[in-house]
Amino acid sequence: MSYALARKPIVVDALQYNKPERARFKEWSEGGIGCVHVTLAIWENARETLTAIGEWNRLLEQNSDLIALATTAEEIERIAASGRTAVVYGFQDTSPFEDDIELIEIFYQLGVRIAQLTYNVQNRVASGCWEPDENGVSKFFGRNVIAEMNRLGMLVDVSHCTERTCFDAIEYSSRPIAITHANPSEFVGTDIELNRRNKSTPLIKRLAETGGVLGLSMYPKIMRDGSNCTLDTFIDMISWTADLVGVDTIGFGTDYYDGWPESQIKWWRAGRWSRESAIPIKGFSAWPTWFKSSVDFPNILEGMEKRGFSGEEIAKIAGGNWVRLFRDSFVPIQMPAAASAA
Amino acid sequence: MSYALARKPIVVDALQYNKPERARFKEWSEGGIGCVHVTLAIWENARETLTAIGEWNRLLEQNSDLIALATTAEEIERIAASGRTAVVYGFQDTSPFEDDIELIEIFYQLGVRIAQLTYNVQNRVASGCWEPDENGVSKFFGRNVIAEMNRLGMLVDVSHCTERTCFDAIEYSSRPIAITHANPSEFVGTDIELNRRNKSTPLIKRLAETGGVLGLSMYPKIMRDGSNCTLDTFIDMISWTADLVGVDTIGFGTDYYDGWPESQIKWWRAGRWSRESAIPIKGFSAWPTWFKSSVDFPNILEGMEKRGFSGEEIAKIAGGNWVRLFRDSFVPIQMPAAASAA
Repeated sequence: MSYALARKPIVVDALQYNKPERARFKEWSEGGIGCVHVTLAIWENARETLTAIGEWNRLLEQNSDLIALATTAEEIERIAASGRTAVVYGFQDTSPFEDDIELIEIFYQLGVRIAQLTYNVQNRVASGCWEPDENGVSKFFGRNVIAEMNRLGMLVDVSHCTERTCFDAIEYSSRPIAITHANPSEFVGTDIELNRRNKSTPLIKRLAETGGVLGLSMYPKIMRDGSNCTLDTFIDMISWTADLVGVDTIGFGTDYYDGWPESQIKWWRAGRWSRESAIPIKGFSAWPTWFKSSVDFPNILEGMEKRGFSGEEIAKIAGGNWVRLFRDSFVPIQMPAAASAA
Repeated sequence: MSYALARKPIVVDALQYNKPERARFKEWSEGGIGCVHVTLAIWENARETLTAIGEWNRLLEQNSDLIALATTAEEIERIAASGRTAVVYGFQDTSPFEDDIELIEIFYQLGVRIAQLTYNVQNRVASGCWEPDENGVSKFFGRNVIAEMNRLGMLVDVSHCTERTCFDAIEYSSRPIAITHANPSEFVGTDIELNRRNKSTPLIKRLAETGGVLGLSMYPKIMRDGSNCTLDTFIDMISWTADLVGVDTIGFGTDYYDGWPESQIKWWRAGRWSRESAIPIKGFSAWPTWFKSSVDFPNILEGMEKRGFSGEEIAKIAGGNWVRLFRDSFVPIQMPAAASAA
């Protein structure tokens, strides 16, 4: 291993959605991952999400040798430096907020730091990527939710949203936003199973201009060549994106999941809102040979080094950019002294 | 009173949203109203709506001399013939269904027969009239909800929706739909407080072509000249609409409400989804002198008679059209014998 990698840049995976269990935390440790943003809710309502948080709280206690909750960038750095993995709580839909603007602060108090506006379909806040292109952030609750997340220090994620929702979110958010897990559609092409999940070149440029970060994903259904995507092609995608917007906009968001029964797929695809999945369920995809689980993160960093990325560039893409965005995102907007004294 | 009115056509008010109490039921009786569609939920979730149904169930028991629940057109006719008022349970938003396609049948089992897709803003199902014009019925849950309402026999209402949602609902619904309470914007003009609530001429024509019914409303904020609208102008609106689409498409949906404290307005306008009302709250509007409450329904029927509407026309507009639509709407779609035997 080279000098650059021996320095162990902090590695951040901006999206994993495993069945929460110790086997995964061990893989994180083995793969040298300093921080993972985990999903606690997709279709869960407020009450169900409280249960999910309770379960994670117990897991954190029982696995404190491997993981710890992080609610600030400083905590991420401290936990990673201790050789453990920092866990960032997040949602892939705003369903836990239900219709209540006050629930955002409640979940912030409970440690949640990232929320995707919607997952694939339309909700009260925004429209997901399966909906028509013209659907964006809703004029009232949607903008209220973004403003409230901005105020508190909860990062807006738009990975599964329509392009219009992504552009709207960038416009209405006073702080940079995240695309935690998606790939550039111009590089990947549209000949993939979930061709509405990836992001256009104009959107990635706009994200970069506004200080956001894009998490590139190894999820086979959104990679070029699917499960047969080679490490070389994946590194090509990193290079292509770096050529487009520079190295400061890029991170990883694997979308890795493990431990679920196949029945879980229907929950993700159809929730309770449909008796049948709207798109065919074909079972779990095979992960590529060079990324069979979190333990394979070093393969990617070594691949980047072989390709000629510098140690500094690797450190940014591996996790530095996410830590920077999290540092800017996870603290409340400071009110002027007069206002906060009022 | 003329022969036509002495025959007492059944009077249906397709939307009232009072604080539920006996004083209103007495007014219904005095005004000769045979059926009122009442609102049990706007922003209420499933659990809260169960409480609202429980409260209504008690009111029905305690006021059985004046009111009774109707779940079919036959029940409406029988209750009205007994001199009481038939109550039809309905929602002004699909929020009680939350994200669960199965909850529609649950509420149908509990007696709910009409549901508006959304109230003013965007939800998972559709977009309300305060949202941008291009927003309609959502591609997955929205269409699923309409199909499930069609299957069960729950009437789709789009009074507070965007025009696009109204057209989408007509297209996706296999059964006629209702606009229970709105006025023609071409007649009323846009110089009114809630100028996005009324309906365009092309939409009213499309509603008529597909067998739906429009409930004309005395709510001052959507009438020409507001609280100063005269009975003559209101009858003009009935005539104008009849000239446009014939007398079979027209009914009444007063949007009458009484008994609430002013604080209730904020709930209607902002629910829990905003700390402030998105549009200024100016207090309750004064109802016009010729329709100060439900007791004044005869004023309208007499005004129509003076204008030259025939007894048959008055009977249709007063309630016959609603009863016809309810008869076609409130029963489940009959499955073919082979399918139901399977």
